[in-house]
Amino acid sequence: MLGLMQNQPLLISMLLAFAERHHGDGEIVSRRVEGDIHRYTYRDLAGRARQLANTLDKSGLGQGDRVATLAWNGYRHLELYFGVTGSGRVVHTLNPRLHPEQLVWIINHAEDAVLCFDMSFLPLIQAVHAKCPTVKTWVALCDADKLPEGSGIPNLVSYEAWIGGASDQYVWPQFDENSAAGLCYTSGTTGNPKGALYSHRSTVLHAYGGALPDAMNRSARDSMMPGVPMFPVNAWGLPYGAALTGCKLVFPGPAMDGKSLYELMEAEGVTMAAGVPTIWQMLLAHVQGGKLKFSTLTRTVIGGSACPPAMIDTFREDFGVDVLHAWGMTETSPLGSVSTLKNKHLKLPAAQQMAIRVKQGRAICGVDMRIVGDDGQEQPWDGKTYGDLQVRGPWVMASYFKGQSPLVTDQNGVRWFPTGDVATIDADGYMQITDRSKDVIKSGGEWISSIDIENIAMAHPAIAMAACIGMPHPKWDERPIVAVVTKPGAEVTREELLKFYEGRTAKWQIPDDVVFVEAIPLGATGKMLKTKLRELLKDYKLPTS
Amino acid sequence: MLGLMQNQPLLISMLLAFAERHHGDGEIVSRRVEGDIHRYTYRDLAGRARQLANTLDKSGLGQGDRVATLAWNGYRHLELYFGVTGSGRVVHTLNPRLHPEQLVWIINHAEDAVLCFDMSFLPLIQAVHAKCPTVKTWVALCDADKLPEGSGIPNLVSYEAWIGGASDQYVWPQFDENSAAGLCYTSGTTGNPKGALYSHRSTVLHAYGGALPDAMNRSARDSMMPGVPMFPVNAWGLPYGAALTGCKLVFPGPAMDGKSLYELMEAEGVTMAAGVPTIWQMLLAHVQGGKLKFSTLTRTVIGGSACPPAMIDTFREDFGVDVLHAWGMTETSPLGSVSTLKNKHLKLPAAQQMAIRVKQGRAICGVDMRIVGDDGQEQPWDGKTYGDLQVRGPWVMASYFKGQSPLVTDQNGVRWFPTGDVATIDADGYMQITDRSKDVIKSGGEWISSIDIENIAMAHPAIAMAACIGMPHPKWDERPIVAVVTKPGAEVTREELLKFYEGRTAKWQIPDDVVFVEAIPLGATGKMLKTKLRELLKDYKLPTS
Repeated sequence: MLGLMQNQPLLISMLLAFAERHHGDGEIVSRRVEGDIHRYTYRDLAGRARQLANTLDKSGLGQGDRVATLAWNGYRHLELYFGVTGSGRVVHTLNPRLHPEQLVWIINHAEDAVLCFDMSFLPLIQAVHAKCPTVKTWVALCDADKLPEGSGIPNLVSYEAWIGGASDQYVWPQFDENSAAGLCYTSGTTGNPKGALYSHRSTVLHAYGGALPDAMNRSARDSMMPGVPMFPVNAWGLPYGAALTGCKLVFPGPAMDGKSLYELMEAEGVTMAAGVPTIWQMLLAHVQGGKLKFSTLTRTVIGGSACPPAMIDTFREDFGVDVLHAWGMTETSPLGSVSTLKNKHLKLPAAQQMAIRVKQGRAICGVDMRIVGDDGQEQPWDGKTYGDLQVRGPWVMASYFKGQSPLVTDQNGVRWFPTGDVATIDADGYMQITDRSKDVIKSGGEWISSIDIENIAMAHPAIAMAACIGMPHPKWDERPIVAVVTKPGAEVTREELLKFYEGRTAKWQIPDDVVFVEAIPLGATGKMLKTKLRELLKDYKLPTS
Repeated sequence: MLGLMQNQPLLISMLLAFAERHHGDGEIVSRRVEGDIHRYTYRDLAGRARQLANTLDKSGLGQGDRVATLAWNGYRHLELYFGVTGSGRVVHTLNPRLHPEQLVWIINHAEDAVLCFDMSFLPLIQAVHAKCPTVKTWVALCDADKLPEGSGIPNLVSYEAWIGGASDQYVWPQFDENSAAGLCYTSGTTGNPKGALYSHRSTVLHAYGGALPDAMNRSARDSMMPGVPMFPVNAWGLPYGAALTGCKLVFPGPAMDGKSLYELMEAEGVTMAAGVPTIWQMLLAHVQGGKLKFSTLTRTVIGGSACPPAMIDTFREDFGVDVLHAWGMTETSPLGSVSTLKNKHLKLPAAQQMAIRVKQGRAICGVDMRIVGDDGQEQPWDGKTYGDLQVRGPWVMASYFKGQSPLVTDQNGVRWFPTGDVATIDADGYMQITDRSKDVIKSGGEWISSIDIENIAMAHPAIAMAACIGMPHPKWDERPIVAVVTKPGAEVTREELLKFYEGRTAKWQIPDDVVFVEAIPLGATGKMLKTKLRELLKDYKLPTS
């Protein structure tokens, strides 16, 4: 027997319609590629998204056809998020930091029909467009009078001219909520990139889950800055989540340096910001250097890679800003877990609360997680036993676009996505990533967490960034070394840093060596690229002790 | 093209599995009908819900079969919420405050196969059981040794004996998320009761929506007391919402007086409680009378009927407890709107914020609302124009059980549920109920809001409760009078109270008379029964002025 409730599909257009109707004058502020500040409202966003939808209809794009973006965080990109998906097409966010050859491969694999790009990427588009035969329309995200002459790109049109003539009246179509809405490729370090194809249902459920008080705690009282770009995994779903709450949105555009971010936060009363640790590293350096403070920021969501405990401490203790340590992946929409306390933790001493906050946290309702050993058997939740992390849920991927399903099936027939992360889970369900499975260091049959080693180095006052990798060792198979970047003006010797490890980890886990480097290579989404670090250190030899 | 995300139905069993796995030791505290305090955990709840599911399977109940409850708030009732629905049956919550004849009608209409009742309702069951031929099993919610001898009820079994022998191992079945899960009849004042049949999908989406920071803001840090009984509309969905967050749950059982509620709140560190204004009236009277304070309570959710502004003031100003004024109906699961501020309101003076808080608030994302005039045309959102309130959304009813669809279709083919409430909506989307359409007083072609008249009386220090009704008038069609209950020991004359209205409302809206009564008749869910009040005053004559 079926229930007798209204039959409404969970569509992204529902979020936009809600924001327009109930938060019509809610502000959306963007620092543009042009450098100036642009302001408008959810009502404006909705009108222009409808213009875009009419434009796509007229262009003859079918349901499910891909419209690619190569753009920074801003209002036009936001219109693409809603107008492309709402009208039944798929928004495919391209990562401009990828190698051009990789971009070409992805565009062809996705069979993008339209590609919309910020003007700062014009040279990149000029370099690749001839190799992308599926793209029929190239759209520069600029005013009509800013369109460059003689770009060499056929059918190049400015975004404003493209949508400008279209009506802002449009009835969002109703269709199966399982229809594809978004496409994002993982920048895998090996093999070809693989695409996660989000549905309307997964996107809307993820927006609800992510807004919960046990996740990002997003409300209409927030002024939210997505400090994570809009190309990886829908900026962690923040733009969709913003529409669900009607909060103020503040887009930093391409200006992601500490000074620009800080000034925009202060000017627009940002209460919540989300990004990867490397972004916050730059922000904190600027704020500390100028002896500044945050006057409106109440919390930062930190994910993408493990947040050093020292950073959580600095935000909380020095600036009164709460840190929500989160975990997720392209394949999980991305939000899987956030570290927030439970009722029973509220009376714990600060140090014990901190020990919980540094973990990647508890699963958001909808997501289930488990850790398994090499034999596929579930491991105990004791906070100590390592295992390969597997997850499932309505916003977790089932299969790659035009690819295989990576899911594994357990003895009860339940299917799990293997994350490639190694983690512990404690008795209260708090998960802590100890490593990427490919980064874990196997020394004498024991595992050493490269993240633990990095976090200790990062707690040293002279260290700005640290990356731990395993080096081949004749007796122990592998031994860890740590590559570090020192803070400007700060000094520390190899011996001092190794000494610093004593008492902070087991003796056999202390790195064999410290390598001082100018910079740690970072990937397209700000994560450390250990493969590249290994390349840089390919002639390195472990000291013989 | 469909997305490639995991295909997991939204089932109530997902919420229970989440709570067990990620909040296994989360506390559930119940004051029992027996008077003592019972404590256990989500892990215990899940195990016993599985025992119940095995019992139902063995009883031969099919999918969609109805299991009725006639019970207070407590752990066994909670097990029925999860075990009955999770195994594919429908939990049908009966309202013990209904007239026995009405109960019999509902049980037969629903074709309940099992009926589980608290021992305090044994006399009621003895009175009605012979008229309920569909009920094959009568279950007393008690220990095996508490089962009364010679009750006269055939096939009477104690709940503990019924489920006690069953295994606690059970795999929750996966089925269509649109399957029926819950049934609740509205206690309509005219005509036969009508049943709302909730689905798993509507229940789970409602749990997500209701937990949002713009709704009840529920988290794992809460200790939540459902001060609303578990028979009307799933206790506002709080038990399901609790599992979604893993918060501590505190059930008051049948002891709903101010003293009992207060002492349980203090003993169990309740942070959030939800109920109708009449419950909070009793609580506040106890707390004020004893010069007590709330040491852990941070907020109350008040709905079911309009909350007098004076009550919001008292909670906030005298006790530092935030009030979330909410609106909903049996047909809307029930949460439709909650009054919380937006970003732009945060800098407003307290009085202006208060003017927002007294409204029933903004729609929760998922729900859309509108007001229409007598001609069915949508009315402006100006905060002044009255209209009939209509709502839609995935947790809003489409059709009554074995009944008609009450939905109306607008010119775009969109279908709305007509609530029977009259409301205004302001430019920011804040809705304010001005009346039930049947209670609005039509005086000389103008409408007078009975709620406005009541709120003014309630603001007088001597008045405990007030009900405004229209009385026939030869010239004006109707004129308002207000029936009031004075606070113990307080005095006010008819003339003083009428004087109190001057300057607080338009002169022509001031009631023609004050009637002092011992008590206002309350319905089964604590709402004022104006039909009954009219009966009591059937010999009343308006003063001739």
